[in-house]
Amino acid sequence: MPYGKLIEYADAAPEAQAVMDEIKAARGVPDVNNAWKAMARHPEVMRRFWNRAQATMRPGALDAVTKELIYLAVSVANGCHYCAASHTALATRKGASEAQLAEMVEIVSLALEGNSYATFYGQEVDPGL
Amino acid sequence: MPYGKLIEYADAAPEAQAVMDEIKAARGVPDVNNAWKAMARHPEVMRRFWNRAQATMRPGALDAVTKELIYLAVSVANGCHYCAASHTALATRKGASEAQLAEMVEIVSLALEGNSYATFYGQEVDPGL
Amino acid sequence: MPYGKLIEYADAAPEAQAVMDEIKAARGVPDVNNAWKAMARHPEVMRRFWNRAQATMRPGALDAVTKELIYLAVSVANGCHYCAASHTALATRKGASEAQLAEMVEIVSLALEGNSYATFYGQEVDPGL
Amino acid sequence: MPYGKLIEYADAAPEAQAVMDEIKAARGVPDVNNAWKAMARHPEVMRRFWNRAQATMRPGALDAVTKELIYLAVSVANGCHYCAASHTALATRKGASEAQLAEMVEIVSLALEGNSYATFYGQEVDPGL
Amino acid sequence: MPYGKLIEYADAAPEAQAVMDEIKAARGVPDVNNAWKAMARHPEVMRRFWNRAQATMRPGALDAVTKELIYLAVSVANGCHYCAASHTALATRKGASEAQLAEMVEIVSLALEGNSYATFYGQEVDPGL
Amino acid sequence: MPYGKLIEYADAAPEAQAVMDEIKAARGVPDVNNAWKAMARHPEVMRRFWNRAQATMRPGALDAVTKELIYLAVSVANGCHYCAASHTALATRKGASEAQLAEMVEIVSLALEGNSYATFYGQEVDPGL
Repeated sequence: MPYGKLIEYADAAPEAQAVMDEIKAARGVPDVNNAWKAMARHPEVMRRFWNRAQATMRPGALDAVTKELIYLAVSVANGCHYCAASHTALATRKGASEAQLAEMVEIVSLALEGNSYATFYGQEVDPGL
Repeated sequence: MPYGKLIEYADAAPEAQAVMDEIKAARGVPDVNNAWKAMARHPEVMRRFWNRAQATMRPGALDAVTKELIYLAVSVANGCHYCAASHTALATRKGASEAQLAEMVEIVSLALEGNSYATFYGQEVDPGL
Repeated sequence: MPYGKLIEYADAAPEAQAVMDEIKAARGVPDVNNAWKAMARHPEVMRRFWNRAQATMRPGALDAVTKELIYLAVSVANGCHYCAASHTALATRKGASEAQLAEMVEIVSLALEGNSYATFYGQEVDPGL
Repeated sequence: MPYGKLIEYADAAPEAQAVMDEIKAARGVPDVNNAWKAMARHPEVMRRFWNRAQATMRPGALDAVTKELIYLAVSVANGCHYCAASHTALATRKGASEAQLAEMVEIVSLALEGNSYATFYGQEVDPGL
Repeated sequence: MPYGKLIEYADAAPEAQAVMDEIKAARGVPDVNNAWKAMARHPEVMRRFWNRAQATMRPGALDAVTKELIYLAVSVANGCHYCAASHTALATRKGASEAQLAEMVEIVSLALEGNSYATFYGQEVDPGL
Repeated sequence: MPYGKLIEYADAAPEAQAVMDEIKAARGVPDVNNAWKAMARHPEVMRRFWNRAQATMRPGALDAVTKELIYLAVSVANGCHYCAASHTALATRKGASEAQLAEMVEIVSLALEGNSYATFYGQEVDPGL
């Protein structure tokens, strides 16, 4: 199967269609986005990831926007373009403002900077931490 | 200089002592933690990083706890042990609960999982994102 | 030279043509894939990498499919799209099944998940390991 | 809680003890290793990770040793020392030989080498892949 | 805003236009490259990054070409395609030769290889280092 | 074999001893450092890596200090503590100054910052690059 190939609803396996139906209902959208159409190649992976994502991203001790910002921050740090694009959209739809996104990006790059210093300077973890 | 060597206040250059004084005052602690003592080897790096960290981590469009959780999430995703230890402590001191930390960790690992699927399945960014 | 520029056989240096000839013969293909055409910019890099890849990927204590799955797993974890595409194709050509690919992806994301817990929880290596 | 703190069975929450019991029974060991004792801080994370790990690592289209080698390869590529130590031990216990480990390490570093060339030379994915 | 959207000079905020003016003057180019047009979405991020980049990349204890090669090496190791493309161009414009670029790529992949061995073999830092 | 175990010269396989002899002669040191003692577990990996490292790190289009700084920069960006420690020592022994090390660290963290912006803002590579 060509890399990046999308499997549309009509061509998907019944198990993949079931996940697609749940996503469309949960998000109130007419179609799922490309990540799910590509993942439909392996319906069992899709099912497990969707279930886990649902459980993890629902509001709990952290609210929905904060959760999306954390997901997005990790994706940016990790260099994942698709993830940066789709989770910026999700964060915005859930209420994140441009100012919040700008601050999030600054924290990501600050953390990457701080991480590199920790490696170069090589200090031990402080007793008591 | 041996890897990970700490430079105590008394042995630090005046420029490094000045930063250490600011950190102690800002945090109300009697001594700075090891990351700063190791970084005192290069006072100009220390100065710039402290100034940037202060500016970036002060409450703005995002509150102080959310900012620390984002910093911590990136550090965990990045495999930085010192950073995980010190920013867990900072997040806790600023008010993050155990339940919030547990949810943050789950989001980090969910994002890493999602990022790996994006690479393997290779779909294009959705038009409109 | 424009980023990503491909150097076709006719325009390649003799040292690069020699590597291309070996690749075509070893794989029974009429042309090399884009990675080699781009790398033809530096024939000495190409020569060393091809020699190393040949030596490392030939069946030994591990069979050819297992070796390709390991290469692919690292590439996915590392976020390398080109590598994911080309080594999925190589693994498939050598006999990897869809079910094996699906399991490989699950192990990659499980390992990334486990790695992030190891960083966050910060335990020491067990004595005896 | 100090970074890396271990929670022994007697001090663990009932939910964490239940997971520890399952691990000891599944592996035939008198005690769980440090990763689980540290993770006992968040029993719900521990429960989900153990369940997922069990499901993913059991023999399927890939045998148990191949699965461990893939997990280990990702952990090495990712720079996770604890994971490298514990999954080398797991792979060995399941039957991986020294020669297989040596070949795995060579494939990991070959893949990292190939990944860096893909980024530097920047070629597009071949049509047909 | 669509992912990757570029903001041209005429549509940029005054603070972003001011940075664009400085970049064009410093580099003697008629227009800034895409990274800056995309970043114009957050003028304050753009301002800080431009100021820092200027200060860090100007010749000092290391000359301009060496600085660009180090920046490029990190970007390649990190899998950042845009950064590889733009900093190869910058390094070349400042005088880096094809032979220097080829050697830089070999060092990047050698370092990634060495890093993976350090994780797998797990040795302690030598006393005295 | 316990994680991180060192194999001293007297206990090493003849093939590993041969590499150790070459390292001691090339560097004029009475004993090899820990990375080589750990890697002696797999003499064939050790042989190939030593040969490659020798060939790559000898002065060419780039001088010896520049090469060490690039190796070190990648290791810091990659979070490899052992590599940061040993290549800081190597760079210093070959003549790198404290000021050069301080500038190198700033470039590493600047590159990580720039890489994260490239992922978040998602611009296409400029035509002409």
